[in-house]
Amino acid sequence: MSKWYQKSGPDGDVVISTRIRLARNLREYPFPNRMSSEQRAEVEEKVKDAVLNANQAFSSMFRCIELSSLNKEERVALVERHLASPDFISEPNHRELILSNDEEISIMVNEEDHLRIQVMKEGMQLSEVFNMADRIDTLLNERLNFAFDDELGYLTQCPTNLGTGLRASLMMHLPGLQESGVLARINANLNKLGFVLRGMYGEGSQAAGAIYQLSNQVTLGLSEKDALENLTGMARQIIRQEREARKQLREDISVQDKVARALGILGSARMLSSSEFMELISSVRLGVAEQMCKDLSLDTVNALMIEAQPASVSSAAGHSLTPQERDIRRADLVRQVLASQTK
Amino acid sequence: MSKWYQKSGPDGDVVISTRIRLARNLREYPFPNRMSSEQRAEVEEKVKDAVLNANQAFSSMFRCIELSSLNKEERVALVERHLASPDFISEPNHRELILSNDEEISIMVNEEDHLRIQVMKEGMQLSEVFNMADRIDTLLNERLNFAFDDELGYLTQCPTNLGTGLRASLMMHLPGLQESGVLARINANLNKLGFVLRGMYGEGSQAAGAIYQLSNQVTLGLSEKDALENLTGMARQIIRQEREARKQLREDISVQDKVARALGILGSARMLSSSEFMELISSVRLGVAEQMCKDLSLDTVNALMIEAQPASVSSAAGHSLTPQERDIRRADLVRQVLASQTK
Repeated sequence: MSKWYQKSGPDGDVVISTRIRLARNLREYPFPNRMSSEQRAEVEEKVKDAVLNANQAFSSMFRCIELSSLNKEERVALVERHLASPDFISEPNHRELILSNDEEISIMVNEEDHLRIQVMKEGMQLSEVFNMADRIDTLLNERLNFAFDDELGYLTQCPTNLGTGLRASLMMHLPGLQESGVLARINANLNKLGFVLRGMYGEGSQAAGAIYQLSNQVTLGLSEKDALENLTGMARQIIRQEREARKQLREDISVQDKVARALGILGSARMLSSSEFMELISSVRLGVAEQMCKDLSLDTVNALMIEAQPASVSSAAGHSLTPQERDIRRADLVRQVLASQTK
Repeated sequence: MSKWYQKSGPDGDVVISTRIRLARNLREYPFPNRMSSEQRAEVEEKVKDAVLNANQAFSSMFRCIELSSLNKEERVALVERHLASPDFISEPNHRELILSNDEEISIMVNEEDHLRIQVMKEGMQLSEVFNMADRIDTLLNERLNFAFDDELGYLTQCPTNLGTGLRASLMMHLPGLQESGVLARINANLNKLGFVLRGMYGEGSQAAGAIYQLSNQVTLGLSEKDALENLTGMARQIIRQEREARKQLREDISVQDKVARALGILGSARMLSSSEFMELISSVRLGVAEQMCKDLSLDTVNALMIEAQPASVSSAAGHSLTPQERDIRRADLVRQVLASQTK
């Protein structure tokens, strides 16, 4: 079954994926940072029970993963696939990840909140993703008693999530705006308007490979619908500006050269560091999106961007690797994938 | 007809080509720097007559090129193919290049001496090349009166050529010795023993792409035979050391990576500067010689090393090019050649 990150979707030239996350807590328990070990175990059981004993069609989509049953690399690989947060995997005890088979849906149990319901899809699909998150929320609410206040909305451990508990994010590839230097200016305006633009793996992470996450910040005093509409409007503007900037790049022989070389190096290197890989695949992604690289698809590029991440490479190897071994395996993986696509 | 520089020969992994040059002067004229314009014209005519009216089989091999009939790029392209010296083309008036069709033999008329007879062949072929130069010398001597002194030998304008007038050079690819740093030590010893190691285009030129010319320095008090034997012995030592150094490189993953990337970049880049090209083709040549690049031959690599030189690229274009246009054409040429070889 192909995963969301192995596909490209609507507006896929710019938008890699859409993610919605809902923060929910059970009324009858304190927030996770104040729970006893027993309470954490109880919450785990309750949430698992709610998921696995909802209607048959729904329940059969999921598997439950006890975080403590995974080694470090397997846990980090979950972060690389955006299925779990760095915080979530840093302390695995009494934490459970409930995952749909296509990896579109992941429910983190006992992260900062009791539940973090996440839905992801390829490309720009804010309403589809929200509708699915909303359905899951409704289904779980039948069996779980969510902490909700008529004035404030959903109660969350951190006040920044209070209200809708909703964070909507678009993972965007912005080489055109990055190259032209426009991004810094856009970013300043975004913050004033209640949005934030961050690196690929959220807060504090670098925008490796010109990949950025655009998210809403405001959860209080704004309905889900309005929050999503605002984000959509902002995203549309950025997409338009990015496409405009790419028109310039496409005609530039030095950009064509950079793209062609990037593909040449990825198709031949015997060692690839993670950071070099991200730089190169970003150039190739631009080339594919702008019809400069004919044989490759965005699906393949999107999948590689995840599968060549450090822990995903180590994890696929099945045993721990030195950094050099990992760089060799990454290069092997990339060469194989490209050779199979461009023959 | 394929040219010497489009082939690889004996010991071709290390030795790209062999060149012998004989300096000769006509007894009845002063040396070129003291000749009048009329005398220069007379010498031109005499030498042409001697070449074109020697025996039929010999004469039919040659064509005569008046240097002043060529534009600057065509003249520089002759230097890039080692058919003429930089000095020779810098002042084209009353200078003639007599060239065999396979470009193995070139006779510069009115360079530093009245005649500079040059013979080149692919690979390590010192005795074959010398024998051919010697035959030409003998043939021309039947019609020309060479300045010769029983004590000193052949008289030349510069005393460093006095005696045999012979300079024998091997163009060698020494990435192993360059990488290991051994070359500096070897070079110091060479000078003491009467040899010199220089860049690809002779005195003062850089050793771009790890290509060096090993030549004899001593022309006085040493027979041609002894000079060639000494050079052969020294070359054999360097070849052995280079092969030893390459054994290390071959096993090194970072060298394998460098070679593979070089081939990847050459096969994909849209712009290539001359210096980057030389660095990359040097890595590829090492890879081909050491069986790391399967589809390519040393012939192809040797030919590219000449044909991608700046003036050869401009000259092939048929009109003058900006540096960027030249870099684009170089990249186009390299991509075409590699694509035709590695499909």
